[in-house]
Parts: sequence; structure tokens; C-alpha cells
Amino acid sequence: MGDNKKIAILGASGYTGSELLRILCRHPKTEIALLSGDRSAGKNIADIFPQFHALLGGRSLPPLVSIEAIQPADWQGIDLVFCALPHGTTQHVVAGLPPHLRIIDLSADFRLRDAGQYQAVYGKPHQAIDAQKQAVFGLAEIYTDQIKTARLVANPGCYPTASSLPLIPLLQSGQELIKHASIIIDAKSGVSGAGRAAKESSLFAEVSEGLRAYGFEGEAANHRHAPEIDQILNDTINYQGEKDSRRIMVSFTPHLVPMNRGILSTVYVELANNTNLTDVRSRLTQFYAEKSFVKILPPGVVPATQMVRGSNYCFINVFADRRPGHAVIVSVIDNLVKGASGQAVQNMNFMLGLAEETGLADLPMFP
Amino acid sequence: MGDNKKIAILGASGYTGSELLRILCRHPKTEIALLSGDRSAGKNIADIFPQFHALLGGRSLPPLVSIEAIQPADWQGIDLVFCALPHGTTQHVVAGLPPHLRIIDLSADFRLRDAGQYQAVYGKPHQAIDAQKQAVFGLAEIYTDQIKTARLVANPGCYPTASSLPLIPLLQSGQELIKHASIIIDAKSGVSGAGRAAKESSLFAEVSEGLRAYGFEGEAANHRHAPEIDQILNDTINYQGEKDSRRIMVSFTPHLVPMNRGILSTVYVELANNTNLTDVRSRLTQFYAEKSFVKILPPGVVPATQMVRGSNYCFINVFADRRPGHAVIVSVIDNLVKGASGQAVQNMNFMLGLAEETGLADLPMFP
Amino acid sequence: MGDNKKIAILGASGYTGSELLRILCRHPKTEIALLSGDRSAGKNIADIFPQFHALLGGRSLPPLVSIEAIQPADWQGIDLVFCALPHGTTQHVVAGLPPHLRIIDLSADFRLRDAGQYQAVYGKPHQAIDAQKQAVFGLAEIYTDQIKTARLVANPGCYPTASSLPLIPLLQSGQELIKHASIIIDAKSGVSGAGRAAKESSLFAEVSEGLRAYGFEGEAANHRHAPEIDQILNDTINYQGEKDSRRIMVSFTPHLVPMNRGILSTVYVELANNTNLTDVRSRLTQFYAEKSFVKILPPGVVPATQMVRGSNYCFINVFADRRPGHAVIVSVIDNLVKGASGQAVQNMNFMLGLAEETGLADLPMFP
Amino acid sequence: MGDNKKIAILGASGYTGSELLRILCRHPKTEIALLSGDRSAGKNIADIFPQFHALLGGRSLPPLVSIEAIQPADWQGIDLVFCALPHGTTQHVVAGLPPHLRIIDLSADFRLRDAGQYQAVYGKPHQAIDAQKQAVFGLAEIYTDQIKTARLVANPGCYPTASSLPLIPLLQSGQELIKHASIIIDAKSGVSGAGRAAKESSLFAEVSEGLRAYGFEGEAANHRHAPEIDQILNDTINYQGEKDSRRIMVSFTPHLVPMNRGILSTVYVELANNTNLTDVRSRLTQFYAEKSFVKILPPGVVPATQMVRGSNYCFINVFADRRPGHAVIVSVIDNLVKGASGQAVQNMNFMLGLAEETGLADLPMFP
Repeated sequence: MGDNKKIAILGASGYTGSELLRILCRHPKTEIALLSGDRSAGKNIADIFPQFHALLGGRSLPPLVSIEAIQPADWQGIDLVFCALPHGTTQHVVAGLPPHLRIIDLSADFRLRDAGQYQAVYGKPHQAIDAQKQAVFGLAEIYTDQIKTARLVANPGCYPTASSLPLIPLLQSGQELIKHASIIIDAKSGVSGAGRAAKESSLFAEVSEGLRAYGFEGEAANHRHAPEIDQILNDTINYQGEKDSRRIMVSFTPHLVPMNRGILSTVYVELANNTNLTDVRSRLTQFYAEKSFVKILPPGVVPATQMVRGSNYCFINVFADRRPGHAVIVSVIDNLVKGASGQAVQNMNFMLGLAEETGLADLPMFP
Repeated sequence: MGDNKKIAILGASGYTGSELLRILCRHPKTEIALLSGDRSAGKNIADIFPQFHALLGGRSLPPLVSIEAIQPADWQGIDLVFCALPHGTTQHVVAGLPPHLRIIDLSADFRLRDAGQYQAVYGKPHQAIDAQKQAVFGLAEIYTDQIKTARLVANPGCYPTASSLPLIPLLQSGQELIKHASIIIDAKSGVSGAGRAAKESSLFAEVSEGLRAYGFEGEAANHRHAPEIDQILNDTINYQGEKDSRRIMVSFTPHLVPMNRGILSTVYVELANNTNLTDVRSRLTQFYAEKSFVKILPPGVVPATQMVRGSNYCFINVFADRRPGHAVIVSVIDNLVKGASGQAVQNMNFMLGLAEETGLADLPMFP
Repeated sequence: MGDNKKIAILGASGYTGSELLRILCRHPKTEIALLSGDRSAGKNIADIFPQFHALLGGRSLPPLVSIEAIQPADWQGIDLVFCALPHGTTQHVVAGLPPHLRIIDLSADFRLRDAGQYQAVYGKPHQAIDAQKQAVFGLAEIYTDQIKTARLVANPGCYPTASSLPLIPLLQSGQELIKHASIIIDAKSGVSGAGRAAKESSLFAEVSEGLRAYGFEGEAANHRHAPEIDQILNDTINYQGEKDSRRIMVSFTPHLVPMNRGILSTVYVELANNTNLTDVRSRLTQFYAEKSFVKILPPGVVPATQMVRGSNYCFINVFADRRPGHAVIVSVIDNLVKGASGQAVQNMNFMLGLAEETGLADLPMFP
Repeated sequence: MGDNKKIAILGASGYTGSELLRILCRHPKTEIALLSGDRSAGKNIADIFPQFHALLGGRSLPPLVSIEAIQPADWQGIDLVFCALPHGTTQHVVAGLPPHLRIIDLSADFRLRDAGQYQAVYGKPHQAIDAQKQAVFGLAEIYTDQIKTARLVANPGCYPTASSLPLIPLLQSGQELIKHASIIIDAKSGVSGAGRAAKESSLFAEVSEGLRAYGFEGEAANHRHAPEIDQILNDTINYQGEKDSRRIMVSFTPHLVPMNRGILSTVYVELANNTNLTDVRSRLTQFYAEKSFVKILPPGVVPATQMVRGSNYCFINVFADRRPGHAVIVSVIDNLVKGASGQAVQNMNFMLGLAEETGLADLPMFP
């Protein structure tokens, strides 16, 4: 284990933290060296997530410590830290981290590049504007080169990952296949996306045997995800000469589905003139031909979240709309893997010079 | 019970059949006189649906018979028959029914008015074209007057009910509030909508902990529901002088959600010029002000299927799209009640001159 | 409505409170006159449970008030109050209620008759010992006569209801059919039994796609339910001359099942000498022959919670154990209806001199 | 890959077949060389289970063939075959397999050692009695040495695996800690245990939001699992001098839980004289101290199926019964992994001289 990279996880007691551990415990080139969990300091991870009693043989994980108790010396042996803290808290932590340390943040803190927009969305000024400026957006298939050399990677949200991966190839400059103003994203998520916090709206009896839309005007969730999608798509179309990042503004409506894991995005688009479904399909297939984790399914096979559960894959397909000149794109991911901890490990692999797939070869689990 | 109307149900062994029984067993003005179930002839309904061991006190239901075994004399005392048979079979049965009998058909057989379109959608010619011509479309709040005097009512599909109720008021001639070409319906249904037939795609382990879209080009379900929605909306805009019923053609994508009951339709529309969200809201509120079962929720309250489970209600609300000039409408029903058997009883009440709400006063069951 | 009884509900914002409302809104002989909900004072019930936007026509419910805000004058017109408050709080409220008011308490506060045992189970002395002494245990089929004249009825727990209804007939003195020391109750409950409080252990992602046992030594739930079952069964065997109520001590293990509603009790018993399965079955059938809500299913039909969902029924059946001389009894109820609010209304009907079934004729909802 | 063992799977189109593939696709010492699926001959596995579109990089799987189409020459390069065929069919296939081929059968065909009992349970004589005699029962932790050299391993049922692992250490001769006649097994299973066959009883709408017991006298499932448990336990107590294998006869009641995966067995036992809970716990802890996949949880931690989902682990704990002298044991597995395909791979590892854990290091997936 001498050559293994030493990894820290801040915020290991939530679902993205435990999912990071599930993946990293089998990662052959890393070693978990430090775990924090403020409410659970002093406990072992298995006290909080009993599935970790399943660690094989001699393997063990360090006990949880509080962030405050971490001393500068503790950081010296660490190569990379995952921050799986609640939204709004990483920005206070990041300034205290030593410069040698590379950082992957799974919260929303560094996703929006524009400080003004951050304030507009979150209602308060960003507390680490310098760090925010240097953050690289961690959509692994798209920003690969920048991620490799980044110090701080802002891991994308689950909704933006599922929604932007099928759209980016269709929007790249010089190759626009769809009309910019036409994008409607009807997204559906499992409940683990809401985290492990004890909230009435996440209770089994509130969610089970039902379906709800949410995130409309005045609700916070929409403010968080939709501007992030706008930013990605506007980066893609490479708009120059104007400061307003909102050249593309998507319609975005999330829904809460009674399942643990999975996001399905149904994306409605109007095709550009002289473009047809075959063009769209060819473009997607070609764009992702060399990518390990994004698969365009064979014609007619409709992606379902069950097909990617527990894996780092994104499955995409495109279908004719009944209305001529329009198309429907369906995209699925596991929100905790490709939508969070899996993509974070994919980014870590890039940052550490490892093969992208290292530790991520799990096949989906069905049923 | 002497004045009670005598009711028959053909096809009582499926989910819509049993839901009819659940409702009618408490209906104060009717009496179940005849039940058919071909595969279960000779059995009691409680042998097939054990919940009917719960019939109170002296109440009982007639044993199931096969349709072939029903004699002309058996029909003499019957006032009204519900056909809850598989799609494609009612049209063979209806010709043999005596003229005095009023009929509510819960299958898709008589929903499409145009024989050519029926053939296009179902792949074979309609077998009861005369009956098809006289059928009244049973969208209870909209075709009330025609239903009252109809002999044969074609009870609407669950998807068309949930999707058209919020759109009709916005499309009525002289009052168009939305652009006709802009309608996108992203619909989500519970699994009971697929019926009680033993199919791999309806198995618990295929559906649970997952979400799938379906009904794209080449799949039958889309062909069935979308043309029905088109027909309703084109009726609404009262298009004259052309034979093509497809003046409006909606985009429609159904999804299968891991829950028993419920349909949620998310409808994306572009507002007409000089129209705003308040206009849309006012129109809906005013249109349904006197209707018992369609409720426009207070501003900001998002409809969820849990809110109408087990009841005949449709809850609707309208929200701003992020894109100016667009709106998002959310509509929910219980697919087995307002989407099938409840609306059928509502139609029966109209046909028998009873108060619309008779036997339908169940409050939603939550959780 | 002049003759209708005026009803108050304290604690209307939890699941048993909303279920009481669902039932009472259709009850023909009562009228909801007062609702309390401390955290929601000033709101309407539909703000907390949006399904109540479905109230038909002119019906309405009073706004929620805080208990502290209720004045003595407010109680004057009230005939009966349901207390659906958290365990431990009714005992503080009951002393302040005027003497004319009849009370049905859905909490655990008055279920255990012995003050010493109450303290042993709950860890603190009872605060209303006088009231506790006069409380009648509200197992509706068993204590009917006492309930009719009671001022204060302690509505049974959901587990004790499902578990004791099949055992009582087999234990009655002079007719013992099973060995007292042999009773093992393996009970399984849906999640609504844990209430609407925001707890990590009730989150969808903690409960879904899984099954857990709970309530072992040191956990509170077991302490609450098992002594209540012991008390009922020891009342049944009518033990005289000893103060210890624990002549029968059952084995009891609850499990949490990923469903909203339902309790299934699997009860393992050793038959008394010279007794066989037919004797057991006959005894149960005869005992409940005249009861509306307890049904012994036909031989071989296994009770399932789906068969009673949303209804006030208890379905029971008895089967041979593989081991000669033993039997397995299966009993199912809906925990929110027969296990809580439905039985409470059944008790109210007895107290008000109404037919037992009034307002409780809902058939089970399946699927 | 030259040294890798070549593996065949007969019956790859069911849930245990696809789970075998999920595991073996990551197994570093084997290679899938042949797949059969009669109804799907000619198709690729991804046509049947779309999650296999996720195979990384250059990996691929052979197309499905029908068993009849397999030629003797096809078997020559194969080292080991998994039979994941329906119960009753492997016994017809096994005679035609070449002698060099080692076999792991996941069906029930070779689990019961006694031909007379097989006939009693399955209603027809066994068709491969010679093979049955040489079959080794594949409970991996218990029959390790025999499995290593076996030609034919009968992989245990999921219920017997979960139920017998905690009981065997308590029953071993010379160390009996519990009374033989007292064993009651209340077992609960997810729906994938019923397989992928399209049956009404496995439909989502039949299973979801409900719980049922099954397998009582006259139903086949009980006949299959309970005698298998009896056989294991009677092997354990090493009864000599009598032919009747039923010295121990357990009480066994299975239940169907609305979840995809998981078995939880709640086992009620009476302790032997002079034995207490600490003795039981110590015995279990010591017995499994060196075993990779069976974990006795720390005192007070209650096993839940969520804790082992997707993994090959069995988690066990023991608790005090309220009745002195009795104990309650809780045991959980994933029915498709330790209860089927995972244990089959564990057995394969033994047979091929590999480390037991090879390819089975997946941590449980939660949530």
C-alpha cells in the first residue's frame, strides 16, 4: 500500500459520504486516511452505517473526527480530500486547507462560477470567492483536461449531470442541432437525493405510493439546479462578448419519485432546421464513442434508472416526438454514483493520473 | 332497495372491475345484479379479490358468470352495464346487448370517434362502427349534457383525463390562452394502469426502485392515448370545415412510476400573446368553480398523487416556467378512480339523473 | 345537522388525526367542531394535509387552534373529544377537560392499568392516576359494554389490536385451547405507525427496499406494546387472587416493513392437549360470528394486509404448523384504521349509542 | 486471460443468471464462455437485461444459445457450469454433461439427499438419482472441504441459507445450546426470490404496499424449503442409527415483503438448560470468527436486509426474548447473492482452488 494515495473525506456520515466509502474501499490505488463527521465524532463509520461491518478481512477505516479537531499535521500525509458537507459549509472550510491538498467538493458551493449569481441563488454572498474562481467544474467527460490539473474540482449536481450530458454534444458551436430556446427538462429523482437529514418531506409515508413535482418559483431547489444547467450549456455554446451567462435558459421541473436511487431526465427539444433524428443520434453516438461511462443505447431501447443502479453509467437515447421537427431525449444515472460520489472518484482518477475507470467497474445491480 | 337501479359489470376480475365494485357497494341508489368474469365463472368475487370478504352484514354480490352464459332474460331487469373488458373486446359484445340497456365502456374501444383513426391506431378495423358513432365521450365535467342522455358512454383513458382537464379551459374558442402548437405532456403513471394481466414488465422486481419512460414510436400505448388527447383538444377548439382532427397534435411521453395508483401530468405550454400566469389561473379557477371533483389548488401548492389517492378528484395548479411567456401546469388524479371507475360512476350518476357526487364522497387516503 | 354530536380532535396534524378526519368527514351523525394542532395553530387542515382540499361542496372544517387557546366556553358545545396527541401528553391535558366531555385517547397514556407498570415501562410516574383508573380499554369487540358507558376510553395500540383479537377467544376461561406459555408473536408493521415526526429511522431511503426487526431489550417500543398485550391476555384468562398481571408473558418481536399501512401478526402457539386445528378454527368462527369487523377467512385463504387497507376490518386465519400440536395464526389490520382511528370511531359509535358500523363502511382499497 | 477458467451458465435469462453474470464479469480468474437461454436463443444478454450495455471497454459476452444447440465439442473448453434453470429441469440436463465438467446447480433439484423425500415434496420421482447421490450441499461455510472436491454442488436455497447459518453452531454435537424441538423460523423475503416468471402473484400492484404470509400446508413453497432446513440441521446434530432424517422438524413460515432483494429470518429458540444468551453469542462469534462472509454484529445492533444488499454477507445477531430461557436470533442476507449467485461463486472459488472472496468483495449498497 506504500504507493497508494492518501484520501480524506469530510462529511462521511451522509449518503454521498458513505457512497464514496463504498467505492473507495475497493479502489486499488487509494487508502482512506481520515474521516470527519461532526455529529458522530469518536464513532466508527459502522456505528452510523452498519453495512460497513462487512469490511473484508483485515481492512478497517479510521474513526470519525470533528473538522475542528483536525490539526495541520494531520493533513500532511493526505493527498486529496473529498468534501461531502452540506451546501454552504465547504466554502468556510476550504480556506483552512493546506495548499498541497487537492480538493473535490460534492456540495453546490463552487458550482456556479459567477459570484453575483451565487448570491442571487443562495441569498448570501459567497465566502471564498478566490477559491470559487479557481474551481473547475467536474463534469468528467466534458472538462477532463482541466480536471486533471485542477486543485479544486466542483463536482456537478445530479440533475445537471443527467440533463447536460445528452445536450452538450447537440449544442457545441459549429454543430448546433437543436434550437436553443426550446429546451424543456422534465427531471425525476429518487429520494436519496434529498440527503439523510430528518425532514418531514423525506419520510417514507410522505413519499411512498405517490409522486410530486417541486422546485417551482420561490422554492430553493430549482434556483440551485437550473442555473447550473444554464451555465454548463452556455459554456458549451461558447458565447462571447456578453457578460450575461443566461443566453440559454432551460425550463426545468424536478419530481420526487418513490425510489431510493436514480435520476431520469426527459428532455424535449426542437430540432434545428435541416436536422433530423438520425443526425441527433449520430452526433451523440460519435461524441461518446470513446467514453467509458456514457452509453447511447441501441435504437428503440428506452433508458430506465434500473439499468444503471449502483453504477457510474449514464444511459441515453433519443426518440421521435409526435410533433414533426421535435425530439425527446431520455437520460438516466444513479444520482449517488454518476450524480455524486462515482463521478467524484472519476474526477479523482483524472487528478491522480489513474485510468478513468479505476475502482468504478461495478456493473449495475438489477433487480 | 326497490327503487334502486340494477347494475351489471362485465369483466369484474380486473382492477377497474374491482374498483367499480368498491365504489358501487357503497352507492345508495344502485344494486349489483350481475357480474361476469370469464376465467373465473362460477366463483365469487371474494375468491378473486379477498378484500370482498369485508362486505358488511348481510350484503352479498352475485357469483361471476361467463359472458356467453348470460341469457337475454338475464338482461331484462338490468338498467345499466359497465364494460370493464380488455381493449378490443367490448366492440364484439355491445351488438348483442338489448336496446333498453345503457352502457358505460371503460375500454378504449369507443373513445376514438374516427373509424379510420381507430384502424390506424389499433391496426384493425373497428367491429361496431354504428355503436362507435353514437358513443358519447365520457369526460364528465365537459360532456355532461350529452352524457345524461347517452345510451353508450366511452369512459376516457386515465392519461387523457389527467392531461385534458387542465387544458380544455385554456383552449376554448374565443378564449385561447395558450399556443396550440406548444403543448408538451410529460405524464407519469402508477402500475395499476397496466392492469392485472401477468406480464414481465409489470412484475414488482422490474418496476420497483426504478423509473422508465415508454410509449415511443412503434409502441402501442402512445398510439392509444395521444390521439385521444388530440381528439379532445380539437373538439375543444371547435375546428370547423376540415376533416383532419389533428389540428392540435400534442407531444406526449408516459412514464411508469413504482406506485400502485396515481397519474401526474406535467404540461408545458407557451402562453398566448398578452397573456400571463394570472390569466391562466383565473380562467381555470372560474371554469371549475362549480365542479365538485376538479380543484385548482391555492397558489404555490403543488399537486401530488398522494393528495387524491382513492378519490375521484383532479387537483390542478399552474406555475411560472423559468422562461418568460411559458407556464407549467401540474394535474393529478387516481388512475383507477377519476381515471377509470370513479369517473364511470360519475357518468352513471348523470345518466340515471342522480347527483353527480352520489357514492363518490370518499376523501383521499393519505398516507 | 341539529342533532349531530359535536366532536373535537386534539392533535389533528398527525397521521391518526388526519385519518380521524377522513373517517369523520363522512360520518352522518357527527360534526367536527374543534381542531387543535399546536405547531399549526391558525392554519387550516388543508395547509397541513392538502388532501383536505377535496372536501365536497360547502363542507368545511374549523381552523386549527392551540390547546392553550381553548377556553372553557369552547368546550360547552362539544360532546366528545379525540386525543391524538403524542404519548405522554394526554395525561397532562385530561385533567383540564370539563366533566361532561367524553374522551377517546389514541395515545398510550391510559392503556396500562397498573400505575407501577406504567412507570416501569415509560420511566416516569403517571400524571393522571385517577383518570387512569377510570379508563376503559377500547378493544371494541371485547369491551363493548364497558365502552358504551365509559367517560374515558384508552384506544388500543395497533400491535395489541392485531395480536390479541385472534388470541382472546382461544384463552377465555373454561375454554382454553392453547398453552399459555407458548405464545410467540412475530409482528410486522408499515411505516405510518411511527407517526409523522421527522426521524432518520423513518426516512424513505432508510426504510425502502429493506426490512428490519426492532424493539429488543433496551428499546422503548417493545416495552410499550408487549406489556399491553400481556395485560389484555391476562384480563382474558381472568386470573384471580394474585396481583402480578404477568401470568401470560408473550414473546413479541416487531418488524418495520416498507409499506405505508398495515400490520400483519404471525402468532405461533402450542395447542392444548386434546385440541386440534378444527377446534381452534371453530372457536374463532363462532366467537366472531356476529361481529361486523372481524372476519375469519375461509380455510386456506391467507390474510394479507392489502386485503384490509383503508378499512376497519381485521382478517384472521389459522393454519397447521409443520410440528404436530402447534398452530400458526395470521391476523391483519390497517394500523391507522382498526389499529387507531377507525377503532376510535367504532368506540365513539358505542359511546354515542350509534350502530357500530356508522361511518365505517369503507371497503378495503386494493390495489 | 490464458489461465482463466472457462465458465458456462445455463439459464442466463433469469434473475439468478443475471446476478451470476454481474458478479463473474468482475471476477479476475474466470471467463464467461457459454450462455444459454432457451426463450432468447440468438439474442445478446443485453437484449434481455439492458444493464449489460454497461460492460466496460472491450468486454463482451457470448450470445445466448439454446441448450439443445450445445454440441459435445462446445463443452470441451469449459471448466465449470452453473445451472440456473427452473426447478425440475437440471436433473434432465445433468446426465448429458461430460464427466470433466464441474457443476454448480442453483435450482432445488439436488438439495434434498433422500430420493423418497424428494418425491414426497415434489410429487414425482427424481430423474437423476445417481447424480443426486454424489451431490454436495453447497452451504459454503459449513461444507467447505466437501465442496472443494465435489463434481456437483447443490447450491442451497435462500431461505435455508439465512435460517441455518445461525442455528448450526448452536446445534453441533457435544455443544447443543438450544432445545431441538423449539425452533420456529419466521422468514421474510423480497420479491426477486419468486423469479422473473410472469405471475399474477408477483405483479407490482399485488405486492406493493402490502405484506402476506404464504407456504402453508398444501402450498408448494413450504414443502421445498422446510425439509431442506430440516436436512441441514439434522446433518448438524449428526444423528446416527436412524434413517428418518426428521429428528429436528422446524416450524417455518415465509412472508412476501414489498422489496426487491433481501431475506430476514427471525428465529425463536428455547435455550438448553444452564445456557444463557452470552453462551449463545459467544458460540456464534467464535464459530464464525475466521469466516469472511458471516458477521455476528455487536451487541444490540439489529440486522436489517438493507445492511447486506448486493453483497455476499450474512449478518446475524442474538437477543433476549422477553420470556426467560428463550432467545430471538435475527439473520439477514441478500437472497440473490448469499442466497443464490454469490454463494454459488463462493463455491466455485472453493472448487477452483481460489481464495473464497475472489470476485465477491462488493460492499453492501445502501441506500
